[in-house]
Amino acid sequence: MAKKKYNVAVVGATGMVGQVMVSILKERNFPVGILRPLASERSAGKKISFGKDSISIDTLSASSFKDIDIALFSAGASISEKFAPIAVKAGAVVIDNSSAFRMDPGVPLVVPEVNPEKAREHKGIIANPNCSTIQLVVVLNPIHKAAGIGRFVISTYQSVSGWGKEAVAELDGQTRSILNKKKPKVNKDILPRQIAFNLIPQIDVFCEDGYTKEEKKVVNETRKILGDDTIKISSTCVRVPVYMAHSESVNIQLKRPLDIKRLKEILSKAKGVKVMDEPSTSTYPTPIDAAGKDDVFVGRIRRDDSAENGFNLWIVADNLRKGAALNAIQIAESLFL
Amino acid sequence: MAKKKYNVAVVGATGMVGQVMVSILKERNFPVGILRPLASERSAGKKISFGKDSISIDTLSASSFKDIDIALFSAGASISEKFAPIAVKAGAVVIDNSSAFRMDPGVPLVVPEVNPEKAREHKGIIANPNCSTIQLVVVLNPIHKAAGIGRFVISTYQSVSGWGKEAVAELDGQTRSILNKKKPKVNKDILPRQIAFNLIPQIDVFCEDGYTKEEKKVVNETRKILGDDTIKISSTCVRVPVYMAHSESVNIQLKRPLDIKRLKEILSKAKGVKVMDEPSTSTYPTPIDAAGKDDVFVGRIRRDDSAENGFNLWIVADNLRKGAALNAIQIAESLFL
Repeated sequence: MAKKKYNVAVVGATGMVGQVMVSILKERNFPVGILRPLASERSAGKKISFGKDSISIDTLSASSFKDIDIALFSAGASISEKFAPIAVKAGAVVIDNSSAFRMDPGVPLVVPEVNPEKAREHKGIIANPNCSTIQLVVVLNPIHKAAGIGRFVISTYQSVSGWGKEAVAELDGQTRSILNKKKPKVNKDILPRQIAFNLIPQIDVFCEDGYTKEEKKVVNETRKILGDDTIKISSTCVRVPVYMAHSESVNIQLKRPLDIKRLKEILSKAKGVKVMDEPSTSTYPTPIDAAGKDDVFVGRIRRDDSAENGFNLWIVADNLRKGAALNAIQIAESLFL
Repeated sequence: MAKKKYNVAVVGATGMVGQVMVSILKERNFPVGILRPLASERSAGKKISFGKDSISIDTLSASSFKDIDIALFSAGASISEKFAPIAVKAGAVVIDNSSAFRMDPGVPLVVPEVNPEKAREHKGIIANPNCSTIQLVVVLNPIHKAAGIGRFVISTYQSVSGWGKEAVAELDGQTRSILNKKKPKVNKDILPRQIAFNLIPQIDVFCEDGYTKEEKKVVNETRKILGDDTIKISSTCVRVPVYMAHSESVNIQLKRPLDIKRLKEILSKAKGVKVMDEPSTSTYPTPIDAAGKDDVFVGRIRRDDSAENGFNLWIVADNLRKGAALNAIQIAESLFL
């Protein structure tokens, strides 16, 4: 019997996440019948590679989802808001990488290592969490199950690829200018400040209380995915001059005692987690170690004596893969394979 | 009456901090009689500029401190251990930027905005704190006085200049290689991992409990300078691909309630602190804002609802100036002028 195949649409196929979605579908041998890459009119006529095939990009429209089984969206919240319901009506299951539906109580927010069962409760749309949240909960979930996380404080070190191709080009162009002793050009419509050899303690726009939307996402999405609204969270999100992979310095306070050896053992056995932690050989994850990899890496695991049951962790993952495209395709796998 | 002048030796005059020391002495019109730049044999015969003068560098030896009133040391702990007592014996007051004497109970550890009175208790040597500690305590001290800091969690974003000229050259060379699509060279004797477009969650060597020496310095030096061993501190120190200025994401828990308006007011009035905090215009300090400046900049001031009397701060300062050379010269000013 022939294995069932699925017709897959990728909305935002020319974006950084969309491109990785297409390559991961091939890499993981997802049983794709028709692949339909969709983008705005600007990309009409362009082609993308899918294994040995070259496939023309279609312009996204209300009729794009005919015969589509799975629609992977990664073209921003406003596109998802408009077209995801259309795709659902056409019979597709939507896995949406934008923030449009994440906090909708009727939409599951899924990280397959953490809450795969939620995916099955969908009513057409499943939301893919924010990149910085995904890598965090993959590591925190097994700890939360073992000893209960009461509170955590997170400071992030996020790469430019998390803000798209234009931000990557900003880092690249500004860096070249500075090395050539020229004044770097800063396009504030892309990133609010110079990123080359600099840091930007602002990701996304500010809310009234002085936190950025990115910082709020970490709080709200973590609680929803771990299914525990009592976890206390403080977050600070910072853009760093790194191309690929997000890093996070996370200080956790557990509700119940946990031996550090046991903590390391729990993380070593956790699905999707790779422990890289051997100070004597300077072994710990850095962005270039995680780039292109599927695992979430954790190192610098230390007891924190400044709090009861306190620990520090350093968490690094490829923001385009596990932080976006891979997680979306893992959701599709959990539902259809 | 002629103003009294002081003969000043700068040990490590060719290093990054030493060079800034010399230029700050001139900038601030410190009443220098003789300036005696000292370095290892490798620099013998080289000259440095001091205003309009060009002064030959002497090779550091036991006889280097004859007639010296003030000896500024910034040539590493082992040089300080050997030569600081010799300089004191010769009659100089030593202001030492290395870690050699910082935690010595008989040596004052001074940040003039915080504990200037301690400088006068010296027995010949005054220690200049670590760069990441200085900028931190300048901001924390007025808060501690107003409402008592019970605990804080700090994650740092430290520039390569904090590790010397060789680390700056590593960032520069590796960045050029990557932009030219060549494999970057990593000299592990300088930095343990690639720093260009990457992060290194290790500064200085590891201690037995998994913390680095840099992380311990933040804890121990902060307590000594603030004169309060009960403050609970957790620290994670990370090297970032930035040339100048260190940044810190700091989450504090106060012992007593403090209104956020009052907190901002306290910081606005604090000596050596500049508040840069206006989210609506993306106003917050970044490393390039602080580089070359004397103030410690603070922004992203937010209440943290995850803890009682919790706040988040983003603190940035030039690590070579306030974090090292400037602080040392401010100590000299407080003692002699």
